[in-house]
Amino acid sequence: MNTADFPANLHGIIPPVVTPLTPDFEVDEASLRRVLRHLLEGGVHGLFLLGSTSEVVFMDAPQRREVLRIAVDEVVGRVPLLAGVIDPTTDRVIAHARDAREAGVDGLVVTAPFYARTSQTEIVEHFRAVHEAVGLPIMAYDIPVCVQVKLERPTLRQMRREGLIVGLKDSSGDDTNFRLLARECADDPEFRMFTGSELMVDTAFMVGAHGCVPGLGNVDPAAYVALYDAARREDWREARQIQERLIRVFAVALQGTPRTSAGASGVGGFKAAMRLLGLITHHHMNRPNLPLNDQEMERVRAILEAEELLVHA
Amino acid sequence: MNTADFPANLHGIIPPVVTPLTPDFEVDEASLRRVLRHLLEGGVHGLFLLGSTSEVVFMDAPQRREVLRIAVDEVVGRVPLLAGVIDPTTDRVIAHARDAREAGVDGLVVTAPFYARTSQTEIVEHFRAVHEAVGLPIMAYDIPVCVQVKLERPTLRQMRREGLIVGLKDSSGDDTNFRLLARECADDPEFRMFTGSELMVDTAFMVGAHGCVPGLGNVDPAAYVALYDAARREDWREARQIQERLIRVFAVALQGTPRTSAGASGVGGFKAAMRLLGLITHHHMNRPNLPLNDQEMERVRAILEAEELLVHA
Amino acid sequence: MNTADFPANLHGIIPPVVTPLTPDFEVDEASLRRVLRHLLEGGVHGLFLLGSTSEVVFMDAPQRREVLRIAVDEVVGRVPLLAGVIDPTTDRVIAHARDAREAGVDGLVVTAPFYARTSQTEIVEHFRAVHEAVGLPIMAYDIPVCVQVKLERPTLRQMRREGLIVGLKDSSGDDTNFRLLARECADDPEFRMFTGSELMVDTAFMVGAHGCVPGLGNVDPAAYVALYDAARREDWREARQIQERLIRVFAVALQGTPRTSAGASGVGGFKAAMRLLGLITHHHMNRPNLPLNDQEMERVRAILEAEELLVHA
Amino acid sequence: MNTADFPANLHGIIPPVVTPLTPDFEVDEASLRRVLRHLLEGGVHGLFLLGSTSEVVFMDAPQRREVLRIAVDEVVGRVPLLAGVIDPTTDRVIAHARDAREAGVDGLVVTAPFYARTSQTEIVEHFRAVHEAVGLPIMAYDIPVCVQVKLERPTLRQMRREGLIVGLKDSSGDDTNFRLLARECADDPEFRMFTGSELMVDTAFMVGAHGCVPGLGNVDPAAYVALYDAARREDWREARQIQERLIRVFAVALQGTPRTSAGASGVGGFKAAMRLLGLITHHHMNRPNLPLNDQEMERVRAILEAEELLVHA
Repeated sequence: MNTADFPANLHGIIPPVVTPLTPDFEVDEASLRRVLRHLLEGGVHGLFLLGSTSEVVFMDAPQRREVLRIAVDEVVGRVPLLAGVIDPTTDRVIAHARDAREAGVDGLVVTAPFYARTSQTEIVEHFRAVHEAVGLPIMAYDIPVCVQVKLERPTLRQMRREGLIVGLKDSSGDDTNFRLLARECADDPEFRMFTGSELMVDTAFMVGAHGCVPGLGNVDPAAYVALYDAARREDWREARQIQERLIRVFAVALQGTPRTSAGASGVGGFKAAMRLLGLITHHHMNRPNLPLNDQEMERVRAILEAEELLVHA
Repeated sequence: MNTADFPANLHGIIPPVVTPLTPDFEVDEASLRRVLRHLLEGGVHGLFLLGSTSEVVFMDAPQRREVLRIAVDEVVGRVPLLAGVIDPTTDRVIAHARDAREAGVDGLVVTAPFYARTSQTEIVEHFRAVHEAVGLPIMAYDIPVCVQVKLERPTLRQMRREGLIVGLKDSSGDDTNFRLLARECADDPEFRMFTGSELMVDTAFMVGAHGCVPGLGNVDPAAYVALYDAARREDWREARQIQERLIRVFAVALQGTPRTSAGASGVGGFKAAMRLLGLITHHHMNRPNLPLNDQEMERVRAILEAEELLVHA
Repeated sequence: MNTADFPANLHGIIPPVVTPLTPDFEVDEASLRRVLRHLLEGGVHGLFLLGSTSEVVFMDAPQRREVLRIAVDEVVGRVPLLAGVIDPTTDRVIAHARDAREAGVDGLVVTAPFYARTSQTEIVEHFRAVHEAVGLPIMAYDIPVCVQVKLERPTLRQMRREGLIVGLKDSSGDDTNFRLLARECADDPEFRMFTGSELMVDTAFMVGAHGCVPGLGNVDPAAYVALYDAARREDWREARQIQERLIRVFAVALQGTPRTSAGASGVGGFKAAMRLLGLITHHHMNRPNLPLNDQEMERVRAILEAEELLVHA
Repeated sequence: MNTADFPANLHGIIPPVVTPLTPDFEVDEASLRRVLRHLLEGGVHGLFLLGSTSEVVFMDAPQRREVLRIAVDEVVGRVPLLAGVIDPTTDRVIAHARDAREAGVDGLVVTAPFYARTSQTEIVEHFRAVHEAVGLPIMAYDIPVCVQVKLERPTLRQMRREGLIVGLKDSSGDDTNFRLLARECADDPEFRMFTGSELMVDTAFMVGAHGCVPGLGNVDPAAYVALYDAARREDWREARQIQERLIRVFAVALQGTPRTSAGASGVGGFKAAMRLLGLITHHHMNRPNLPLNDQEMERVRAILEAEELLVHA
């Protein structure tokens, strides 16, 4: 999609872009540029920088600005750029949001505050403060597994009606609630519903999603774009077939556990696959996440070969 | 206690120091100095800057440095200073830890990573990295309600044996587990067990705590010091009597709910009481926490008068 | 479906039959027979007696036998009958299972033990003991919200391979896990996957469900049968349309909260609707569940009229 | 204590009596009588039959009646007898309660409903219905780990004020809440607060408990009685010393995990110890709980020997 349509027509596949690292934990610019080109060539409809999959909470402000600088420079307006502005509390989020606006992104992705526990009323105030301070379109990001609190339906409803948010990225895993939200927002053509699931994308489109933010899209963006195209044609048999294959590819994200945390296994698995595909130079994550070891890398390689993403050497 | 004894003899009442704010959300230096003097005059045995009660996760690095600069300057070595270095991930924690060392504190307080989900193994690596990078004594801070993960007993045992930590601040609310840990560490005279509870301090001392980090200690430090002294004399009747009175005073922390979050009611209630006591100029917290309103302030005033912390006007 | 196909071909819409009560909390036989005829006329493919929606845990053994006696007598083999044998522990479940076999049902539905906390190994032993004692085909019932423990994928896999269970009724609300299970069982043509959701039936069929156990099917069985037929034709547009209407009808289950518990609002709402439809004489549930009051009944009536299940008087 | 004082003066050590089983899972009368005599000789102040530790939810009504018949016959009024009447829902609880009254017990112990989810209002109605139907004094039993719902403070307050309950057995593990409740009830001399913890008994007495229901009391009742006596003298050093030894003895309850569930390890560990002490003939529990194996039994034996409950052979 063209950025001119943003945010009213935000849709499709918007992967959360993995952040490649140098051995000393700085942003690996060359690798990041390769990743961005890979995604654009895959036909994605937008890019989500500095999300959970991007290891955003591991990065300080200069590193975050560096990622955005590279992305804006590489993408030059071909697709909308969303930037996660994720940190525990309101004023720190606003500082990141100003940096992101300065960098030239098109929209922001904002979670509820975390570590500090806040009420639903205070969550609305949080979004209101960011909205008023920065002015960019905001997607609400519901990710209770990371922030310990749900963006409840009445909270989202209020923020939508007051114009504080233009859409939702739902990584709550509660598909029933997502559907009920999608129905509720169906009268509001400009409100955009995105699922953060990689594994239930066909059904998410069937119940009304406008788009998807798949971490696995870093590995195989074209497949997610094809899935989206099939869904738009209401060719659910095709959509399901693509999804079933992507579920098999998703096994790359499961090879580290239980030796590592699920988080390190997931993003670490994407990075391992991307390194094997020649997209990035190193596959380690930020500390304290443990990197996949050689044995786990071999299992990732086998999965990529089995799904013909990699030719057997 | 004298800083010369630190960390081997860390003990007693070490309040988490509230951070007074100016109307534009900066550190209110004059108020903070009054608070620090109030605590020292109350006889506290140490000070914990930049803890949860200090709104640490609302502050950026310059604000945190400002708090530590003021504290080091005001306290001039009379008691040990601990600094919370609390942020989601390892390298960001290390950056804060270096600032804290530079400022001249005596020890650090470190939580598990948060937002990012980590395994117990990765948590050990997190503490190891901070320990190796900075070298100051580290208290582990168990606060699952904020970071979503428990510092499990085997994890603490490993970190203790490897010399990564010198003590524990337990804000988990699991008193049975605290007791079992205290028994386990009884053979290790230098490992220090602190409870973060305000309401179970007498019993915590009875089961082996070396000290307490009471948020309510900002309001009435002398009473907590008296409680500690009674516990050291094993005068449990006296200890309990003081605790029972402090439970009544703790009602100042309950006046905001359910209008505000429990967090805003708690720290906000301490701040309200401290303002009424003439210690700080403003009682608001950082955004998005809602401040106590006038009606709630009046209830706080009534509690302080009933407990003779404030004379009825 | 014919019982001759059972269990190998179990499929379709198998509602959990509501248990109508007399004013003194006994089974209302006349009403129950009307409900059963209503369901058969709706075209359902089987009946699940004594499930959660049937208030099974409120009933003692004689009441449960009474329900099964009436059902077997009324249905006379036209569709398979499944009986929930739900109580906290193994031998009590076996006693109910023997009663159910005696009554003449075709299969059993068994949860994990509850109140007593058991390991996944002990859960397998539980199912094994029931299987060995009674011999009827068993559906595993995953309902962690009631029994506090999940039937984990390896547990289900083991029980399936050992022939202890012939299918799964999934009321866990974890649609991703359901899909992964369905994929895993796709090589086993006789293993039957049923969803307990009322609101995600179209998508459940899309990802591989063989059938559905919708509580709301008591109110409008024909609509669920039509949804199933559309899914079998892979007419997902039609399936979704029916599902969307049924989501609107499901509002009957939401009128009691927050005055009552969600459970009392749900089953109580079905009963209220069924009373308004002339199927049952009384709409109260067993104690301590509060019945819908007059105002809530009026809201249920309005929903039924809006969805043309009831003609506006 | 004498039953004449009941319930107004209920106090002290009231163990939840383990239910010894025959190889075919019936009540082992000879063993149960030995256990009851052992407890009375240990000086306990009351007996709690048919609690969680008694495996109550594994027993049907005839087995429960059998336990009560034996207990009433063996104890002949020397101490008050409380009977757990624990099953998922109101009318089933009332049926057990009538049996218990018929058997001649002095009071009942009632949990919130379980499996069925109920609101706090419905929980009050549950207790009211049992109270009105049976008339015996009722202890509320707060055990959220088994029934998934907390008896909240306002709920307990209402039931206490309406005279529905005479006391609380708190197995919630929330010691802070227990203390706040004890303070709240301090103006009501007849309301009785019992802790279900085995490991925090000294501190529970210090904060206002009237008594304790220790599962480990089956193994060493005299030690708990001595702990209680020390607490009454306010000899907290002695109380703590006894408690610390009992924490070491409690290791018998930890030898089964992770091979068994924690529940099977706990009650199974008590039974193993009691068998080694010659009190009961078999140590297995009801199905599906796995019994301790020989290796685990040897570890239990070593613990008993180390604590001089058993002489080294």
